[in-house]
Amino acid sequence: MKTLVVCSGGLDSVCLAHLIAENFELSGIISFDYGQRHRIELEFAAATADRLRCSFDLVDFNGLRALLSGSALTGDLEVPDGRYEQDNMQATVVPNRNAIMLTVAFGAASARGLDAVAIAVHGGDHFIYPDCRPAFLSSFQMMQNEALGEYSSVKLYAPFAEQSKSDIVVQGHQVGVPFDRTWSCYKGLEKHCGRCGTCIERREAFHIAQVVDPTEYLT
Amino acid sequence: MKTLVVCSGGLDSVCLAHLIAENFELSGIISFDYGQRHRIELEFAAATADRLRCSFDLVDFNGLRALLSGSALTGDLEVPDGRYEQDNMQATVVPNRNAIMLTVAFGAASARGLDAVAIAVHGGDHFIYPDCRPAFLSSFQMMQNEALGEYSSVKLYAPFAEQSKSDIVVQGHQVGVPFDRTWSCYKGLEKHCGRCGTCIERREAFHIAQVVDPTEYLT
Repeated sequence: MKTLVVCSGGLDSVCLAHLIAENFELSGIISFDYGQRHRIELEFAAATADRLRCSFDLVDFNGLRALLSGSALTGDLEVPDGRYEQDNMQATVVPNRNAIMLTVAFGAASARGLDAVAIAVHGGDHFIYPDCRPAFLSSFQMMQNEALGEYSSVKLYAPFAEQSKSDIVVQGHQVGVPFDRTWSCYKGLEKHCGRCGTCIERREAFHIAQVVDPTEYLT
Repeated sequence: MKTLVVCSGGLDSVCLAHLIAENFELSGIISFDYGQRHRIELEFAAATADRLRCSFDLVDFNGLRALLSGSALTGDLEVPDGRYEQDNMQATVVPNRNAIMLTVAFGAASARGLDAVAIAVHGGDHFIYPDCRPAFLSSFQMMQNEALGEYSSVKLYAPFAEQSKSDIVVQGHQVGVPFDRTWSCYKGLEKHCGRCGTCIERREAFHIAQVVDPTEYLT
């Protein structure tokens, strides 16, 4: 299964790239620069492609910032501290982000004759991001089947959709993912802040997985 | 119904913008520059927004050219002459173009609190472009309902999906569309070539609609 992986450079999608390189055929990594604060992620995405010897495409979506504004990930709002509670983290929703990234990835996969596009959405994302839910993923596949029609057939592969972040850490550990070369923090500082929702979630995932967390946190 | 119109500057989408301005509320026009040869279209899209006094957004998708290459609309292949026959015009298919444009437009509409995104696909497009068929449009709406979830509800409005190009000319004529400020030819010359598939289709549409065709054709 020749696969193009949508990879942010975060823990989940870097693990996904490694797992696909191990179990299938990793054809390429595609990343999206939409002006997120945590741009260090993109360097880790490129480094993953280097390490796994596949193509790397960085799609410049900075032109979409104004269009999709209103989110703390691209705008001037403060990123909230604390757990991923609904009220807290709604400010980090970029409207339609996964749908936009996936349609571009499917276009690229179709043009290259690949078999699948893989995305690392996981169970913990569901309750806040509608475009991470299994119902979204299955409807997206149906839409793509119609959109590509007789020209090509590309599968949406989302193996973590019903798994937790600690499940991802366990699987990544088994295939030797260098976790210190992945980024989670939304704050875009030189180290992980240790206090925002994604940092707390990251720490918990290593703890539950009983895997040593090599991340340097500020606090 | 506050509506964002996906508009190329072609005959169909300019008519759609005028009809929405007449019958609903035209909030904005969004156009996509993906390196197509017929860039004069984009000037006509901007002029339509000026004329109808709504916002205009031009999304620069030139960065996607390499990713989506293999099409005569963005690459180095020759645009074929003659009618829109399957073999002839397959070279003009940009993989996933409508799905990509629509997900971006839905993201923008969601961020702005609009009610609908309108697209001017019509019945004549069906047999060659899978992403113009009614089955694609309904699956796209279902996907967007899942993707936006509880955050917003945006309708996909495609009133021409079961109509012919001559039906569009008739309706555009009724609301005073300046047809000479619309562009169809794929060749990107200073005037419509008069011989490519879209020029032939355009001429026929005016003829069948019994509306005077103000277009200057080279031949």
